[in-house]
Amino acid sequence: MQCTMQSFPLTVAAILRYAVTVHGDRTVTTATGDGGYRHATYREVGQQAGRLANALRRLGVQGDDRVATFMWNNQEHLEAYVAVPSMGAVLHTLNIRLFPEQIEFVAYEAEDQVVIADLSLTPILAPVLSRMETVHTVIAVGAGDLGPLEASGKRVLRYDEITAAESAEFEWPDIDENSAAAMCYTSGTTGHPKGVVYGHRSSYLHSMAVCSGNGMGLSFSDKAFPIVPMFHANAWGLPYAALMAGADIVLPDRYMDAESVVNLIETQRPTVAGAVPTIWNDVMNHLDRNPGHDISSLRLVACGGSAVPVSLMKTFEEKYGVQIRQLWGMTETSPMATLAWPAPNTPEDKVWEVRGTQGRPMCGVEARIVDDGGAVLPNDGEAVGELEVRGPWITGSYYRNTDESKFQSGWLRTGDVGRIDVQGYITLTDRAKDVIKSGGEWISSVELENHLIAHPAVREAAVVGVPDERWQERPLAAVVLQEGADVSPEELRNFLSDKVVRWWLPERWTFIDEIPRTSVGKYDKKTIRARHADDVYDVTHL
Amino acid sequence: MQCTMQSFPLTVAAILRYAVTVHGDRTVTTATGDGGYRHATYREVGQQAGRLANALRRLGVQGDDRVATFMWNNQEHLEAYVAVPSMGAVLHTLNIRLFPEQIEFVAYEAEDQVVIADLSLTPILAPVLSRMETVHTVIAVGAGDLGPLEASGKRVLRYDEITAAESAEFEWPDIDENSAAAMCYTSGTTGHPKGVVYGHRSSYLHSMAVCSGNGMGLSFSDKAFPIVPMFHANAWGLPYAALMAGADIVLPDRYMDAESVVNLIETQRPTVAGAVPTIWNDVMNHLDRNPGHDISSLRLVACGGSAVPVSLMKTFEEKYGVQIRQLWGMTETSPMATLAWPAPNTPEDKVWEVRGTQGRPMCGVEARIVDDGGAVLPNDGEAVGELEVRGPWITGSYYRNTDESKFQSGWLRTGDVGRIDVQGYITLTDRAKDVIKSGGEWISSVELENHLIAHPAVREAAVVGVPDERWQERPLAAVVLQEGADVSPEELRNFLSDKVVRWWLPERWTFIDEIPRTSVGKYDKKTIRARHADDVYDVTHL
Repeated sequence: MQCTMQSFPLTVAAILRYAVTVHGDRTVTTATGDGGYRHATYREVGQQAGRLANALRRLGVQGDDRVATFMWNNQEHLEAYVAVPSMGAVLHTLNIRLFPEQIEFVAYEAEDQVVIADLSLTPILAPVLSRMETVHTVIAVGAGDLGPLEASGKRVLRYDEITAAESAEFEWPDIDENSAAAMCYTSGTTGHPKGVVYGHRSSYLHSMAVCSGNGMGLSFSDKAFPIVPMFHANAWGLPYAALMAGADIVLPDRYMDAESVVNLIETQRPTVAGAVPTIWNDVMNHLDRNPGHDISSLRLVACGGSAVPVSLMKTFEEKYGVQIRQLWGMTETSPMATLAWPAPNTPEDKVWEVRGTQGRPMCGVEARIVDDGGAVLPNDGEAVGELEVRGPWITGSYYRNTDESKFQSGWLRTGDVGRIDVQGYITLTDRAKDVIKSGGEWISSVELENHLIAHPAVREAAVVGVPDERWQERPLAAVVLQEGADVSPEELRNFLSDKVVRWWLPERWTFIDEIPRTSVGKYDKKTIRARHADDVYDVTHL
Repeated sequence: MQCTMQSFPLTVAAILRYAVTVHGDRTVTTATGDGGYRHATYREVGQQAGRLANALRRLGVQGDDRVATFMWNNQEHLEAYVAVPSMGAVLHTLNIRLFPEQIEFVAYEAEDQVVIADLSLTPILAPVLSRMETVHTVIAVGAGDLGPLEASGKRVLRYDEITAAESAEFEWPDIDENSAAAMCYTSGTTGHPKGVVYGHRSSYLHSMAVCSGNGMGLSFSDKAFPIVPMFHANAWGLPYAALMAGADIVLPDRYMDAESVVNLIETQRPTVAGAVPTIWNDVMNHLDRNPGHDISSLRLVACGGSAVPVSLMKTFEEKYGVQIRQLWGMTETSPMATLAWPAPNTPEDKVWEVRGTQGRPMCGVEARIVDDGGAVLPNDGEAVGELEVRGPWITGSYYRNTDESKFQSGWLRTGDVGRIDVQGYITLTDRAKDVIKSGGEWISSVELENHLIAHPAVREAAVVGVPDERWQERPLAAVVLQEGADVSPEELRNFLSDKVVRWWLPERWTFIDEIPRTSVGKYDKKTIRARHADDVYDVTHL
């Protein structure tokens, strides 16, 4: 028996329609550098979106053509976020931090037709633009010379000019909620990046989850501040969620240094912000050096992308009255999947332990861990296996990719290894490919890193598995010291000795100037292992 | 182009699965009278749901068979809420306050096979049970004699016994999200009640909306207290939403008098409660007479079903530190459609005015007003027309009913009349059928009633349109005075004179002992008009 409910598609267009009518007077603020800001209302953003859609149609964008962006978080990027999917086309947010050959590859595979690009990013885009075969037009945003882009032979137009020439009215078409709205590529360290195609429905549901009390509880009393890039996993869904909630939005554009971020928080007073730990670490250091700033407008800071140090969360809470909530997700999970917030019955002395986990799934996401053979392991807080997730905003395949190895009977294999406790809290101990297998048992590189980084002399630490005759693999600790700090391997090993089991303690230590990173800033453990194998590192054996 | 996202149906079963795994240790508490309570965990409720589903299968419930409930808000009702839809059957929550012939009609039209009924409701159920043709079995909940029910000739079983005999494991089937999950009948004052059939998808999305920051912001830090009956518009979605959030749940069973409610709030400390204004009015009076109680655990009280007096909201906020948020909806809208909360830029002196409106739609609900000819009117806060709504949890038809008059090109005609301002705030001034048309202009009976009730001598007031030779219709004010109060029609008219335009002021006044109500407690204006026409009322003409 069918229900009698209306058939109402969950689409980005529906979010836009709602935002500009009920919340038309809410504002979108973009940093312009030097402490300046420009403002627009939702209504104006909606009108600009109409003009952009008309301009794109005039440029030949039809059906599900792909329109790429190569942009910072700013008003024009938000306009593209709503206009492109709402007109039925597919928004491809190019990650400006990919390597040039990766950018070339993903634009080609996605068949991007048009790229909307910030002129401030010309130095990155221009060198690769001529090789982006399918792209016929660049729409340039902001001030600056068009010459370097025009040198590619592509048509280059100014965003302001082509939108000014169009009507704000656009006949947004009816759209099937399962059709593509946007796409984003993973930043795989091995092989080509893989495309994830978000649907209208998945974006809508993900936004609802971000707005939920167990998510960020966004409401129209909020002002959202997505620092996490809109080209990286949808800025954790904050742009669409803010529009859905009718929350004000403040956008940092390219001004993401600690001073600019603190200035924005003080003057624009956002209530909810999202950024990776590195940003908050910089902010913490900046506030340390420049006391007297007030960041207390923030009721919630969402933090993820890499493990969030408990010490960072503690400092924010105790010194500045700002709550950092750790979340976990991937490009493949839209990305918000879990949030680390303690259940009300959590004993006082366990609160920080819980907040240091990856958190537990919000409704809509289901999680389980499986062993090497694919058998499901219990949620007992002890069994360790690969994390698998499923749900309406989790990918079930990759774009134009028939590789089934990342999926298992409808579940996404995350490539993360960890455990789940009876309350659903997930503790990730490693990437599956980074796990150290020593004498048949697993050693978590991530846990060792987290403990090492708590040592006052250590700025960063990466632990990788290296070949060992007796134990197959043993951990190598690659450590970056704080400026001017001096500490011996023996002391660090001793520091770890009451924190992990004895056989986890590394014998191999190397002190390096910086940890090699991937294009998106994650530890590049493949390179660390390779440099070790090539004898680049000066290794101390204890 | 299709998205790559997983196909994951939004079902009640998915909410249940999530609740019992991630939040299995959360509790469901049911009042047992005399200040006592019984408790169960989500996990136990889930196990009971499995047993109930097995028992229902054994009783022959297959496919989309309808299983009715005739129950208060208690643990067993919650078990039926999750078990029946999750097994693919359809939950029909019978409204115990319908007239006997209405109960008979709706059970027949819905083809209810089994009724799960509280034995405390035997006095209402027994007289009508034998005439409920399609029902073959009653499952009796609680203590008490089965005799009166058995006298109907139906099979009568005890809930505890049949569930105890079954396994807690049940193979929940895969379910299409658009299939029926539950149904509920409107309590139409004219003609037969009409059935609304909720889908799995609509229930899921509605729950997400209740959990959203603009809804009730439910999280697992909450304890939800639905006083509004689970047989009435799904207790405003609180049961499913609480399970989705992992919030504790406290249920009043049949103990909804003010003393019991206050006792429950003080001892169980719920954070979010939902009930009609009458309940909160009783609570306010009880607290007035019995000072010293603490209800401050409530961070939010949702209130709707009829217009919420601003004076009530003020008292709760100023005297008890409890925020009442007005919501509006109908059985047809699942029911939550709008919430009255001021936008952050609302001037101080407008806050209470805004809180006195019906509020504005949450994302997912679209609202508009149309004139008599169906033309859409502007959201300018002035134009008055019939409210129409659409969205994924709003009905597009009635069960087994081909009458299209309640729908217009995909929108539900609510039968409510009012205006919408530029921020989307809806002010309902009347039911379309209660609007008074005087000299070609509309007079709002509801506004007159709201002003009258603010007079200290007035306990209740109903205003209806009665025939008038010169003006076609004029308002008649039917007033119930406070005990011992005495006031003249002249004084009341004078009291209104600076609150509404002059030509709205009623000339006809009658003082009555009580206002006739429908089966669900709404003013029965049809009866008031009929009694006036039959000269039952003693009318003063000014």
